[in-house]
Amino acid sequence: MKFCNQCGASVEQRVPEGDNRPRHVCTACGTIHYSNPRIIAGCLPVYDNRVLLCRRAIEPRLGYWTLPAGFMENGESTEDAARRETLEEACTEVNIQSLYTLTSIVHVNQVQLIYLADMPTPDYGPSEESLEVRLFEEHEIPWDALAFETIRQVLRLYFEDRKQQQFPLRHVEINNNAFNTARVHD
Amino acid sequence: MKFCNQCGASVEQRVPEGDNRPRHVCTACGTIHYSNPRIIAGCLPVYDNRVLLCRRAIEPRLGYWTLPAGFMENGESTEDAARRETLEEACTEVNIQSLYTLTSIVHVNQVQLIYLADMPTPDYGPSEESLEVRLFEEHEIPWDALAFETIRQVLRLYFEDRKQQQFPLRHVEINNNAFNTARVHD
Repeated sequence: MKFCNQCGASVEQRVPEGDNRPRHVCTACGTIHYSNPRIIAGCLPVYDNRVLLCRRAIEPRLGYWTLPAGFMENGESTEDAARRETLEEACTEVNIQSLYTLTSIVHVNQVQLIYLADMPTPDYGPSEESLEVRLFEEHEIPWDALAFETIRQVLRLYFEDRKQQQFPLRHVEINNNAFNTARVHD
Repeated sequence: MKFCNQCGASVEQRVPEGDNRPRHVCTACGTIHYSNPRIIAGCLPVYDNRVLLCRRAIEPRLGYWTLPAGFMENGESTEDAARRETLEEACTEVNIQSLYTLTSIVHVNQVQLIYLADMPTPDYGPSEESLEVRLFEEHEIPWDALAFETIRQVLRLYFEDRKQQQFPLRHVEINNNAFNTARVHD
């Protein structure tokens, strides 16, 4: 950030009065420009014991498989966002069951919320955002062609928890490239 | 938003190619400026069956009572944020137990996460952000002097759930001033 989006003057990095960390502050009008983590909301859609994955039609990770998920927009709830992303990316309408994972992706300032969701019917398909959409049995999951480490973690936890048929909320924390230090707790 | 924070030129509202909603787009360099919901993280700290509340030293709602909570910062997890806000506002260190409420405050583009937390010791106190910090029995809660409707909902749910000593994650949705239509489910 170089310029104030309110008045167009240049901004500087400094700690505003009453604050304890540097912000972008306008040198002319004094507006403080905060930057905060963004929410990614999505679903783990299930039909007949199979999981729905999408093969990405857009960068990053074009051609790799992922769960339907994307940035939450203003003016919607987290569940609205998860359902909307699932409809946009997989062309399927789901019934949300419960929040399953909350992943803090610390190094990129994102919080990912994945909801467990039932598919009432096996209707789904590709979209502008997905080259291909498919239901996978556990043994068919393309582990080596998944788009994101966060999605790998969600799927790994899901198949573990499915043995007990219990899906408590899982907190995951991923910081920097230390994916193997991801911390998981109930 | 009137100006591009990258190049200082003016921005216009339009739907970028491949998108489906209007964004602020720079008329010179083409940068798309997204606006997304922000996360408020905080705790419901409990010591000896009493709940810790803070009386706000800052606007909005100066002088009213609330749970310690505030905007999540870049570079931290949701639990880091909840602990930090509790330390900053109530000068107490807590042990987080579980995520208790996820409230989509749709009309102001915020998602509030409140964690249940134990206080190992009854050490707490006022801060730059809180005029007063106090432990409350249920019958002492200042219901008429709470700062935010979202906090009232969290406290109401907590005392209900405490009868069963079970604290499942609660989703709450508040849209516009229709507080009474808040939707709550497990």
